[in-house]
Amino acid sequence: MFHLLNRPRADADALADAIVALKARVRLCSRCFSITEDDPCEICADPRRDGTLICVVAEAKDVFAIERTSAFNGRYHVLGGLISPMDGIGPSQLRVRELVDRVAAERPAEIVVATNPNAEGEATALYLSRLLAPSGVNVTRLAYGLPIGGDLDYADENTLARAIEGRRTL
Amino acid sequence: MFHLLNRPRADADALADAIVALKARVRLCSRCFSITEDDPCEICADPRRDGTLICVVAEAKDVFAIERTSAFNGRYHVLGGLISPMDGIGPSQLRVRELVDRVAAERPAEIVVATNPNAEGEATALYLSRLLAPSGVNVTRLAYGLPIGGDLDYADENTLARAIEGRRTL
Repeated sequence: MFHLLNRPRADADALADAIVALKARVRLCSRCFSITEDDPCEICADPRRDGTLICVVAEAKDVFAIERTSAFNGRYHVLGGLISPMDGIGPSQLRVRELVDRVAAERPAEIVVATNPNAEGEATALYLSRLLAPSGVNVTRLAYGLPIGGDLDYADENTLARAIEGRRTL
Repeated sequence: MFHLLNRPRADADALADAIVALKARVRLCSRCFSITEDDPCEICADPRRDGTLICVVAEAKDVFAIERTSAFNGRYHVLGGLISPMDGIGPSQLRVRELVDRVAAERPAEIVVATNPNAEGEATALYLSRLLAPSGVNVTRLAYGLPIGGDLDYADENTLARAIEGRRTL
């Protein structure tokens, strides 16, 4: 607030306009349900993205987190949350049916479930893997293990146990 | 110090004795080079441990970190450090020759390199995998990925990229 008071009036007007425009222009992509100004979104519309690979995330912010890595070249599907019986959230409150429809229509080769590594994320991943099994699509999950640059000695026991179980040939 | 001053003399003597005994009794296992009171150590001497699986770690404390997980039932080999050209540490300063001799003598099926997920740990793992390739042993590495209970959004880009690359079928 003090910063704005020290700026010219035009700056405050511009900020106010930007906030109004944000709410007016930003909407959900009708295909992947990520946030976008254009429908379909930039990623869904980009022909260079691999259409055989769909990454399922809980929230639109996860799309941006994964995009920052440059390690994924497929498309996305935003569920809008995670299955959480404790909070009364089941598959019907999420965009699960939309995902099933997309799998049937687009016939991707692989669904990467990139939900958080916690109870809700795991439950949602397992639910989707069972739900999509009849379609024959390969359902995968992000790897659990040691974070890069960390220390074995400081890793919690569950993470270290998963890193041992998930070990890979060099 | 103040705590000790408030305790009976016998307690101070017992602590002093324990410290002397620690230095006098604790030594390195002649087989795995972990710290132990008896040689060979409890793990090397235990016939229920899987002798076809050797986990290579930098320091003895890593043995204890992995033991806490109960996820590993093989034996260990403590290198005594990691390859670090910056610090002038090469394979000859580590127990690498002892590992090669063990692989030749014990013929394990798998060597799990459980070094830290950083530059020195990676360099050491790659060095060992090349060195042991002629012996035909399968050299594996701990999985990189998301720590359990974490949040995708807070994972650093390198870790998230590795979690995507290392994804597994559910």
